[in-house]
Amino acid sequence: MDERLKKQLDFALEIDKEKNIFRQTHLSGHGRNENDAEHAWHMAVMAYLLREYSNEKVDIAKVMLMCLIHDIVEIEAGDTYAYDEQNKKTQKAREDAAKEKIYSLLPDDQKQELIELFDEFEAYRTPESKFAHAMDNLQPLLLNNSNNGSDWREHRVTSGQVYERQRKTKAGSEQLFQVIDEIIQNNIKKGSLLP
Amino acid sequence: MDERLKKQLDFALEIDKEKNIFRQTHLSGHGRNENDAEHAWHMAVMAYLLREYSNEKVDIAKVMLMCLIHDIVEIEAGDTYAYDEQNKKTQKAREDAAKEKIYSLLPDDQKQELIELFDEFEAYRTPESKFAHAMDNLQPLLLNNSNNGSDWREHRVTSGQVYERQRKTKAGSEQLFQVIDEIIQNNIKKGSLLP
Repeated sequence: MDERLKKQLDFALEIDKEKNIFRQTHLSGHGRNENDAEHAWHMAVMAYLLREYSNEKVDIAKVMLMCLIHDIVEIEAGDTYAYDEQNKKTQKAREDAAKEKIYSLLPDDQKQELIELFDEFEAYRTPESKFAHAMDNLQPLLLNNSNNGSDWREHRVTSGQVYERQRKTKAGSEQLFQVIDEIIQNNIKKGSLLP
Repeated sequence: MDERLKKQLDFALEIDKEKNIFRQTHLSGHGRNENDAEHAWHMAVMAYLLREYSNEKVDIAKVMLMCLIHDIVEIEAGDTYAYDEQNKKTQKAREDAAKEKIYSLLPDDQKQELIELFDEFEAYRTPESKFAHAMDNLQPLLLNNSNNGSDWREHRVTSGQVYERQRKTKAGSEQLFQVIDEIIQNNIKKGSLLP
């Protein structure tokens, strides 16, 4: 087997570990915690089906790939809960070190390509990254809402915190933000979110 | 919320159940059984990274989407193990009923589109479906090989059964089939596969 293919297969095996990185979100039906690989899969399918709601025209293949790889760094850096203010302070440094380490398993051209795609996602500037972030925010909110807001209750999350995060969803999709706004308002009424 | 978006979000929530459909394959590191959503995610990332080995030029966005959705029917139809000859006899009928039921949650145009894509995957004729099947075969083989062939040992699988399945990988990628052939030969030597 040549060196290039060997590197690609080593990377393919390494990212299997993403299935062991668990998030705070629970599966619908009050299920177990979701892992990063499942979350990425769900986001990518949703991105494809909901692409008509993107504020700007997007290259949907790029959005899907962005969704699929955006959490690979967490194999090394761990998951950082959206409302864990302490851990969020060190998130960027941890993820930068992780991306260098993990993507170095790949041949150079693919390493550069995926790091650029990850950086583009993080920078939040292109239409693709904005829409991918909208999916990153909408997907767990749908699950959590289906579970009567139990993840928010567990972590005593406030509506202000959720709006702060979901404000960014608006940059990707005004229409999907309206749905999110309805869901947040319902959860405030039900007491799942603190005022 | 308008009817179209409501249907799309209902479908998005429904497919969350794919994370509870478990396969016979175990995660690397002798981990737990893998589920369909994780498998689909892994296949889609691998398809992107290994696309240069496809025998024929492929529309990689289509391959990735095919990988992502190919097991959604199993939410209703259940997983059918590749070497379970009994269950394979009823697989098509179960999956046809399932696809009608699940994809009917979507707006009509998207229902038709995803059913066509699933049917294209199943029919094994286009370059995209052949390469997606190569990923469907290679991904669990990589995991199983990393676990010293324990899935094959557990189910007393023969090398003939694996070659029969992997013969189809060759239709998607001659080069990846060579890797697979090496892995199979090694596992025969180690006694993980029955002759």
